[in-house]
Amino acid sequence: GKPTNHKVFGEDIAILASVALMGLAVKQTSSSTGAPPERVLRAVQVMAQAVGTEGLVAGQAEDLAGEGMSFEENDEAGLEHLEFIHIHKTAALLEAAAVVGAIMGGGSDEEIERLRKYARCIGLMFQVVDDVLDVTKSSEELGKTAGKDVMAGKLTYPKVMGVEKSREYAERLNREAREHLRGFDSDKAAPLFFLADYIVNRQN
Amino acid sequence: GKPTNHKVFGEDIAILASVALMGLAVKQTSSSTGAPPERVLRAVQVMAQAVGTEGLVAGQAEDLAGEGMSFEENDEAGLEHLEFIHIHKTAALLEAAAVVGAIMGGGSDEEIERLRKYARCIGLMFQVVDDVLDVTKSSEELGKTAGKDVMAGKLTYPKVMGVEKSREYAERLNREAREHLRGFDSDKAAPLFFLADYIVNRQN
Repeated sequence: GKPTNHKVFGEDIAILASVALMGLAVKQTSSSTGAPPERVLRAVQVMAQAVGTEGLVAGQAEDLAGEGMSFEENDEAGLEHLEFIHIHKTAALLEAAAVVGAIMGGGSDEEIERLRKYARCIGLMFQVVDDVLDVTKSSEELGKTAGKDVMAGKLTYPKVMGVEKSREYAERLNREAREHLRGFDSDKAAPLFFLADYIVNRQN
Repeated sequence: GKPTNHKVFGEDIAILASVALMGLAVKQTSSSTGAPPERVLRAVQVMAQAVGTEGLVAGQAEDLAGEGMSFEENDEAGLEHLEFIHIHKTAALLEAAAVVGAIMGGGSDEEIERLRKYARCIGLMFQVVDDVLDVTKSSEELGKTAGKDVMAGKLTYPKVMGVEKSREYAERLNREAREHLRGFDSDKAAPLFFLADYIVNRQN
């Protein structure tokens, strides 16, 4: 647990840092030499899409729109709202990272799509696990304040589906993520299997 | 004079809109078909650079750093601070617009550089003229509140060099801008000459 960027440097500088990093990412990728320019262009497009109105921006707008809205436990609308936010804010960035790698490495369209789906699963899984840890671990175990989500009245997976169902959901996402990796060379895909297991089993 | 984005929609949504627009610009350019991909990549790079640490972000950081600093009239450090901000915040974006056009149109490196310099001149000129209008025109003539800069204690060209010198500086930037256009087909460059004259002569 470390204090966030905007707490340390102020909101104004944190926003500038985010713009600078997006610029650097695009600049760095677009100056890649060695890869065919068609691939590089496609990779840059994927990155731009992930932060834009089909990705991060959509998720954050939904998140802001939900402030002050109240969802009951086991509320279907609450789950939809929560998934929309996490798919667009967290999973979209993981998807872009996986897809950019697949494109630059010369993957087929089918391989690219399978890696995208794998990344979406582990992105959502990360959020489910994070929400569960917040309500089941002590601050000492987490290395950051536990129970923050509940205190902030935040919509979480344990809130909309309970802790047990959330755990099952994380396990299901892990199985799905692994299925999307089938067919890839198992040695080469080993780090991706490991990453999924690491995310679902982490304790802090 | 229209109210700014962040006044109408709130800061949070205005920031998201800016991120969305950057994403769309990169996505749109990177999906350009018809132009050779090497050119498109170079154009995307220029855009990313203009908003990043060598452009907009640097200018805004300098602007924020200057808040609360006080500069005397005719202060050389004040002029440097002011020019750094405008070169990075305003001129860098105009430069990128001109350079992207030059690259996509297949300009030579020398032509691209001349258009970059032209754009930098009219970008700075825009700010000089804006500052002069703020202190020499009424709110009615401007269509927005006059004297705002002075009231806000903002560093401006009239403040660091006086109104007359500011006007001369704008004229000099216009002459320089026009010089950078020499050698281009005069019919094709006509809109650029017109744009420079329009900026230097505008009254509101």
